[in-house]
Amino acid sequence: MNPCLRAIVRTAHFENVEVVGVREGFDGLLRGERMRLTARDVGGIIQRGGTILQTARSPEFHERKGRLRALRELNGAGIEGLVVIGGDGSMHGAYELTEMGFPVVGVPASIDNDIWGTNMALGVDTALNTIMEAVDKLRDTASSHQRAFLIQTMGRNCGYLALMAGIICGAEVILIPERETSLADVAEAVEDAYARGKTHAIIIAAEGNSLAPQDVVNHLEGLEVGFKTRLTILGHIQRGGRPGAFDRLLATRMGVKAVESLIAGETSAMVGLDGREITTVALSEVVSRQREANIEYFDMARMLAR
Amino acid sequence: MNPCLRAIVRTAHFENVEVVGVREGFDGLLRGERMRLTARDVGGIIQRGGTILQTARSPEFHERKGRLRALRELNGAGIEGLVVIGGDGSMHGAYELTEMGFPVVGVPASIDNDIWGTNMALGVDTALNTIMEAVDKLRDTASSHQRAFLIQTMGRNCGYLALMAGIICGAEVILIPERETSLADVAEAVEDAYARGKTHAIIIAAEGNSLAPQDVVNHLEGLEVGFKTRLTILGHIQRGGRPGAFDRLLATRMGVKAVESLIAGETSAMVGLDGREITTVALSEVVSRQREANIEYFDMARMLAR
Amino acid sequence: MNPCLRAIVRTAHFENVEVVGVREGFDGLLRGERMRLTARDVGGIIQRGGTILQTARSPEFHERKGRLRALRELNGAGIEGLVVIGGDGSMHGAYELTEMGFPVVGVPASIDNDIWGTNMALGVDTALNTIMEAVDKLRDTASSHQRAFLIQTMGRNCGYLALMAGIICGAEVILIPERETSLADVAEAVEDAYARGKTHAIIIAAEGNSLAPQDVVNHLEGLEVGFKTRLTILGHIQRGGRPGAFDRLLATRMGVKAVESLIAGETSAMVGLDGREITTVALSEVVSRQREANIEYFDMARMLAR
Amino acid sequence: MNPCLRAIVRTAHFENVEVVGVREGFDGLLRGERMRLTARDVGGIIQRGGTILQTARSPEFHERKGRLRALRELNGAGIEGLVVIGGDGSMHGAYELTEMGFPVVGVPASIDNDIWGTNMALGVDTALNTIMEAVDKLRDTASSHQRAFLIQTMGRNCGYLALMAGIICGAEVILIPERETSLADVAEAVEDAYARGKTHAIIIAAEGNSLAPQDVVNHLEGLEVGFKTRLTILGHIQRGGRPGAFDRLLATRMGVKAVESLIAGETSAMVGLDGREITTVALSEVVSRQREANIEYFDMARMLAR
Repeated sequence: MNPCLRAIVRTAHFENVEVVGVREGFDGLLRGERMRLTARDVGGIIQRGGTILQTARSPEFHERKGRLRALRELNGAGIEGLVVIGGDGSMHGAYELTEMGFPVVGVPASIDNDIWGTNMALGVDTALNTIMEAVDKLRDTASSHQRAFLIQTMGRNCGYLALMAGIICGAEVILIPERETSLADVAEAVEDAYARGKTHAIIIAAEGNSLAPQDVVNHLEGLEVGFKTRLTILGHIQRGGRPGAFDRLLATRMGVKAVESLIAGETSAMVGLDGREITTVALSEVVSRQREANIEYFDMARMLAR
Repeated sequence: MNPCLRAIVRTAHFENVEVVGVREGFDGLLRGERMRLTARDVGGIIQRGGTILQTARSPEFHERKGRLRALRELNGAGIEGLVVIGGDGSMHGAYELTEMGFPVVGVPASIDNDIWGTNMALGVDTALNTIMEAVDKLRDTASSHQRAFLIQTMGRNCGYLALMAGIICGAEVILIPERETSLADVAEAVEDAYARGKTHAIIIAAEGNSLAPQDVVNHLEGLEVGFKTRLTILGHIQRGGRPGAFDRLLATRMGVKAVESLIAGETSAMVGLDGREITTVALSEVVSRQREANIEYFDMARMLAR
Repeated sequence: MNPCLRAIVRTAHFENVEVVGVREGFDGLLRGERMRLTARDVGGIIQRGGTILQTARSPEFHERKGRLRALRELNGAGIEGLVVIGGDGSMHGAYELTEMGFPVVGVPASIDNDIWGTNMALGVDTALNTIMEAVDKLRDTASSHQRAFLIQTMGRNCGYLALMAGIICGAEVILIPERETSLADVAEAVEDAYARGKTHAIIIAAEGNSLAPQDVVNHLEGLEVGFKTRLTILGHIQRGGRPGAFDRLLATRMGVKAVESLIAGETSAMVGLDGREITTVALSEVVSRQREANIEYFDMARMLAR
Repeated sequence: MNPCLRAIVRTAHFENVEVVGVREGFDGLLRGERMRLTARDVGGIIQRGGTILQTARSPEFHERKGRLRALRELNGAGIEGLVVIGGDGSMHGAYELTEMGFPVVGVPASIDNDIWGTNMALGVDTALNTIMEAVDKLRDTASSHQRAFLIQTMGRNCGYLALMAGIICGAEVILIPERETSLADVAEAVEDAYARGKTHAIIIAAEGNSLAPQDVVNHLEGLEVGFKTRLTILGHIQRGGRPGAFDRLLATRMGVKAVESLIAGETSAMVGLDGREITTVALSEVVSRQREANIEYFDMARMLAR
């Protein structure tokens, strides 16, 4: 998020618009946690992971009463427009504010890539590289030791991250919420890899798939499929790390567009990547639809893992 | 190129098409350096930089006589179609072969991203990440030592790499072939950064820009602009390294598409990225046009470096 | 292990000694899986993780009958001395062979660093860097989200890796086999970190410590200690990856010393790092003692986590 | 330096000693740039490159008059002892202060590793890893393209960095100030590598060696040695980057020892690594001797590059 914040502040500065940062999201908004941000304040943050503004959950903002208070805070501070960077929940919050008449532009940031209206959300490419580097390390040792590995990635509702990771890591099995797979299917694919002479097998499982990771490991260990199976749970490692080149460019372009849209009065929108272009899409559309992983990649991954 | 090669072999295998790899490019083609490639031969290469088929220049292939001999080799070996992975020169060679009636599909691979017909060539994203990580390291020490840094990147004719690197690294000055900049302009921008209170200044210069790197360093050192200026020449570091997530996915998709196109008879084409889609573009068009860096990014970079 | 293998082959080559590689360890030795290794065969492997010779378990070698057969294989092939690279089990095997009169020199390689007779085994520094990079990523997001993280590292019997990782990652809690810690102790330390105003808490737990990772997470989640707790299991990621600078130098020096020792007739020994020097220690001593983590570091870590 | 600063502050805190940080070195000391440092101020800095205290040159401190004023500043602020982290110049400054009666303990930090009294200075291991990763990238592309690469590293007076980098990168040629090498010697070694069938050649040259990098490249290009030669100048990239595991542990141990030494009254000393132990050595000895690269490694590197 930091490269996006930098772009927002510098673009606004260029357009002679003052920027006030809100610490810890909607919760900080309610508590009046604001700070003026100058061009210098965002110097040197482009390469830092996380966000200098920090984040927090806000149960109060979920209630209409809380949102009203937020509106009062915003107006009281003389703020004329808001940029909200975040995931599905943040976009819902952004939409609620626009419904109350306040100008808001959203910027999609979620490693799950489950937000409707953009090809890629901020953080996805960096998370994919983190998963990929972890699996590369497993492959090094796998080739030496004849092992199968189950790697659990993020993705409660959307298998995008696991599916893409599966393709770029050459996974033999990919487990995602969008496609039911049985323990028997997993075992068959791993046995098949062993029979074909592969030195290792990689299973990538989204958090939200129907099989518990330990169950898969136990099932494979019980079957004696040829490989020994080992478990890795990546967890929040996927959320951190310095943003990569793709994410920095996307964040920069989205930040510039968000400020331009606010100034142009195109509010109640979220910026998004559509092919090569940064576009805007109505927040009402964003919050009413759910993005799913492209299931066509599932079959491509299977073909390539032969 | 390795992830692309893997996708080509596995897709062909799936379609019951035999694959023969040619070592060391057109030169190896002339010398009959062929090897059968099975699905197992490309196992474990997805994470490796470079190419297992190696590359080489071929002066002989530049002559019509040499190309005729290549054609004879191809036909003699019973090869029915060719996938050529490479840069501008390779696409020209591919085009010449198609003009002689042989079915060829090209895959664009060039860190300069100067090939017409694709938004991104293979290797660009990985090279950008390499430059970015190098500049991140300079920024760490720059903040501590009040220094300016000139980093020379690749790009003889096309400033794409330097321009994008400039944006994602927050460079104060970007020097590219497409836009003339004087020593005085550079000095002014660096002095301005110092005056604004920046702790360091980053100058990113494409190899093919009009100012010699050492001249820039000498000019700045002579002027006493506040910062001390230091030089880094990245050189071929930019060509190596494990391919990143974006490149692996792009390479995989392009490899699948190249085989599908050959089989479908859509030859004399290059596969390319157009927005989100992998498309094909006629090789005749590819070789007759030159891609340039998007100059609109130049002004965006300047605005964001304030 | 690859940089060590390279040093062994090149040093032997320099001393006009022929080298035969044995694939897949003692198991491959029994199956006659040998290959001549020339100076060229180990070109380009210094930067690769794992080992080109692969590894495997050998139940047969655990029996005296199996070892006799191994001896027969070695003598039959005209092999005059053996270098065994591996962990505690491999050093036991090496010792058994020397007891049967065959010249063997061991090289300690184990990320657990639990082998007696060397300050550092091969792989430890690379594994430490892998853990450190993972925790760095957690810290990025932790600072943004107010979370506690439990990271499980390798180390069934020896807490070296977890203890050192704890120090270099600034962990609030370190759980190792050598020091009993209760769930209540963990909770107190995490609450204390929260009370002191820390933005996150890091718990590093060796695989062999007495608390199950999920139990710790559940206990902390139940107590509402201020942070939300998330789990990462690194698994075999720690065994892979390109060897770092320290490991490459150590592996090179140990490989040179192993060959020199064999030639000098100082066999039945293991090479080891003692301060700055590469020394040899009797295999009989290596197999009769167990290295433990330096418990003095435990208190240092606690002092520094304030 | 950040992990060292963290250890200093936390150890002092534990011993109930207040810590005041001086910004920008001796120069900041003269300008009264001091800030109290609490345990919280050094939270989250262990993984950051550079130093939060920044650094600067101080011509004024080179004069006795300037040092007298520094002494007055220190005494005026009620400061009872000083820890100086830095290279050879900083250790000389530290020594001058102790000669004037002020208690100082030095911590050696210099990627050149040219400071007498310690096996390793802070930053050396991280710099070695940076060089190694760069050369790994060159090797990837070198294997594909039949190229020779000249990589210039830091090291004006001391070839330690280039020599160690040469060993761990498997360099064919190493150029250091301590050992004269002619252009003809370089060419012979590169030609020899080509003749032996190597796919590439690596030349690592310390900044302070007697051959200018461009001269070497021109000489090799003129001779047609088989490989094409390309130049990389790493520059200050080597000074930056997140500290690695070895450096963080060394920095932590040295920081703890520095504070303990000050409290114990063992001043006018520098902490150092001696084998496994952190020891102290008199500053008078440190400033009167010069550490050189271990020339025995030079011959080892040559043997291993065969």
